Amino acid sequence: MVKINPLVEQMTSFIVMDVLERAQELEKEGKDIVHLEVGEPDFDLSEIVREAAEASFAQKRTHYTHSLGDKELRLEIARFYQREYGVTIDPDQVIVTSGSSPAILMALMVLCEPGSEVILSDPGYPCYKNFVLACNAKPVSVDLSPEDGFQYSIEKIKKAITPKTRAIFVNSPMNPTGTLVSDATYKELVSLGIPLLSDEIYHGLVYEGRAKSALEFTDNAFVLNGFSKRYAMTGLRLGFLVAPKEYVRKLQVIQQNLFICAPSISQRAGIVALRDSEPEVAERRAIYDERRRYMLSRLKNMGFEVEVEPQGAFYIFCNAKKFTTDSYRFAFDVLENAHVGITPGVDFGKNGEGYVRFSYANSLDNIKKGMDRLETYLQKL
Amino acid sequence: MVKINPLVEQMTSFIVMDVLERAQELEKEGKDIVHLEVGEPDFDLSEIVREAAEASFAQKRTHYTHSLGDKELRLEIARFYQREYGVTIDPDQVIVTSGSSPAILMALMVLCEPGSEVILSDPGYPCYKNFVLACNAKPVSVDLSPEDGFQYSIEKIKKAITPKTRAIFVNSPMNPTGTLVSDATYKELVSLGIPLLSDEIYHGLVYEGRAKSALEFTDNAFVLNGFSKRYAMTGLRLGFLVAPKEYVRKLQVIQQNLFICAPSISQRAGIVALRDSEPEVAERRAIYDERRRYMLSRLKNMGFEVEVEPQGAFYIFCNAKKFTTDSYRFAFDVLENAHVGITPGVDFGKNGEGYVRFSYANSLDNIKKGMDRLETYLQKL
Repeated sequence: MVKINPLVEQMTSFIVMDVLERAQELEKEGKDIVHLEVGEPDFDLSEIVREAAEASFAQKRTHYTHSLGDKELRLEIARFYQREYGVTIDPDQVIVTSGSSPAILMALMVLCEPGSEVILSDPGYPCYKNFVLACNAKPVSVDLSPEDGFQYSIEKIKKAITPKTRAIFVNSPMNPTGTLVSDATYKELVSLGIPLLSDEIYHGLVYEGRAKSALEFTDNAFVLNGFSKRYAMTGLRLGFLVAPKEYVRKLQVIQQNLFICAPSISQRAGIVALRDSEPEVAERRAIYDERRRYMLSRLKNMGFEVEVEPQGAFYIFCNAKKFTTDSYRFAFDVLENAHVGITPGVDFGKNGEGYVRFSYANSLDNIKKGMDRLETYLQKL
Repeated sequence: MVKINPLVEQMTSFIVMDVLERAQELEKEGKDIVHLEVGEPDFDLSEIVREAAEASFAQKRTHYTHSLGDKELRLEIARFYQREYGVTIDPDQVIVTSGSSPAILMALMVLCEPGSEVILSDPGYPCYKNFVLACNAKPVSVDLSPEDGFQYSIEKIKKAITPKTRAIFVNSPMNPTGTLVSDATYKELVSLGIPLLSDEIYHGLVYEGRAKSALEFTDNAFVLNGFSKRYAMTGLRLGFLVAPKEYVRKLQVIQQNLFICAPSISQRAGIVALRDSEPEVAERRAIYDERRRYMLSRLKNMGFEVEVEPQGAFYIFCNAKKFTTDSYRFAFDVLENAHVGITPGVDFGKNGEGYVRFSYANSLDNIKKGMDRLETYLQKL
């Protein structure tokens, strides 16, 4: 008899994965699909980072590293926080992980016990609630609305707080909306005295304004960040957690026991990414921005409503209620008929229903082709 | 105020890490330390594996892979089980992970809910109990004794089983004793109808007899294995879980949400390791075996009692009661005075008290030097 932890049983798969799998089936049938559903940079990692990774094999850096991570990498991360945000962190507050995902898990493990509650936004990154469930805790959704510019309403958060609330997720620039969390929102959030889980994975991909770290507002934050998006290093699985000092020792114990360390080669590559690849990040940012502006213009012309302009990440979150009230159905209709992959808004929570997310992590040519196909399809409706 | 999950608070650090850190301090002071405490191959990964990893950068395989893992790798793993154990597994039962540690975590997450119990051995690998605590479940120790050859006693296990028991850890060859689990023990264990968590990470490092997979005895097992020990690929963080089919879909959901995928480069390296590096594994096995026999002979001559001959892994677990009743104190005395790092038996549980673990994952020259120093030190006692 299969008995599964009932909270783990509640964990859900991404709908975007269903879209991707169906798209891949169509590709096997010979169809040409334009992928605007994916959340992964279309760029490869930069040459200097690749060279650093390859060199580290020659240097025989293929053994376990320190559990907190390569000391040189942690020093570079601390320098990055000083340079980028004017924030001083101790390299020993940094725990290097295999992608930013295990960093989220470790922060929740240390904070939550069974029955604990964690606040997150709807819409929001679908994994957050599943991380909370995996820790046998309870995800508590707070509605975001376009009227509030998809910013947290502090009043709604206060209503959601109970004595069991252990943390609040915040994500800037945000998936799926691409919006930056405002200074006003950060200030209100930190005033609550509850640890923030600040997912800053899309920092570096910001086209209007400046992404701020939660650490510019408080020390009471667990910052989740990594190399996947900014440096196009997804497959290298390299991320990190910056934790309040008083939690570090216990987080290190978790790391030693549950993960041992992050990949050694990726850690050497990460040093070079932080130190030397910022010019390439800036070049790519300009390319993303060009795509963003192009796609925004095309989508608006087609009748999608962009209620809040995305400032970062590589997503545009559109109100598609003119076309559909069933975003799941709509996404599959677009895929089958227009051969364009898009992500249904309902993947991000109930408040995402009636929306769709477009990713511009694809070439301008492909985006143009996808927009043309979508336009033709919508005109026939 | 720092509030930490009380079960996570109970998670403990490895004592061997304390030994290692003190050894590194002594090295900084200019002392020459012989490391016989570590659990990591002293070999580097083989040339052909390194070449495969480097080639995969040129092939731009630096992006996310399928969440279950590279299909080609999973096929090679299935072929390995056919070839090595005569066991047929479906590649879709394999979940590739960042080292075998996350595989342990995922199996426990799916099986355990708060209050669940998991049976493990004392002595045994110290992390197991911490994995269980991280899942908010209860580790239940079953005593192993030298009289039973450090094999599980089925009577003791039956006494430990309650309606809350969800899994039983088994580890062959075993850390710290190096012993293989007998066929008789496997047969008794599977007769209980409780899922086995079978840690087979030291397979490939067996010098007497043959390591059997739990899958030769039952389908009701979660097999935890990886590339770190057999192929000296620790820093590449590559492991896998072979799960009963009925759990795979939920495990994939956990993987997608909590880890996304294992490192892409390491997965390509893993294919070549499985397919082409077995001759090198055999060569190294012969080298480990030579060290094992040498170290066994020296330790016995010094008066350590080896109650059960180790057949695999790279550890010798000795009764040191002739010298000490406090293995922690003894290990540090040996480190400070003889400049040899060893692991106190108490790191593996209360039944490890009075024992010490020696690792022969070091060169024969270094082992000889370590044995000479230890002998001189003991003669002065």
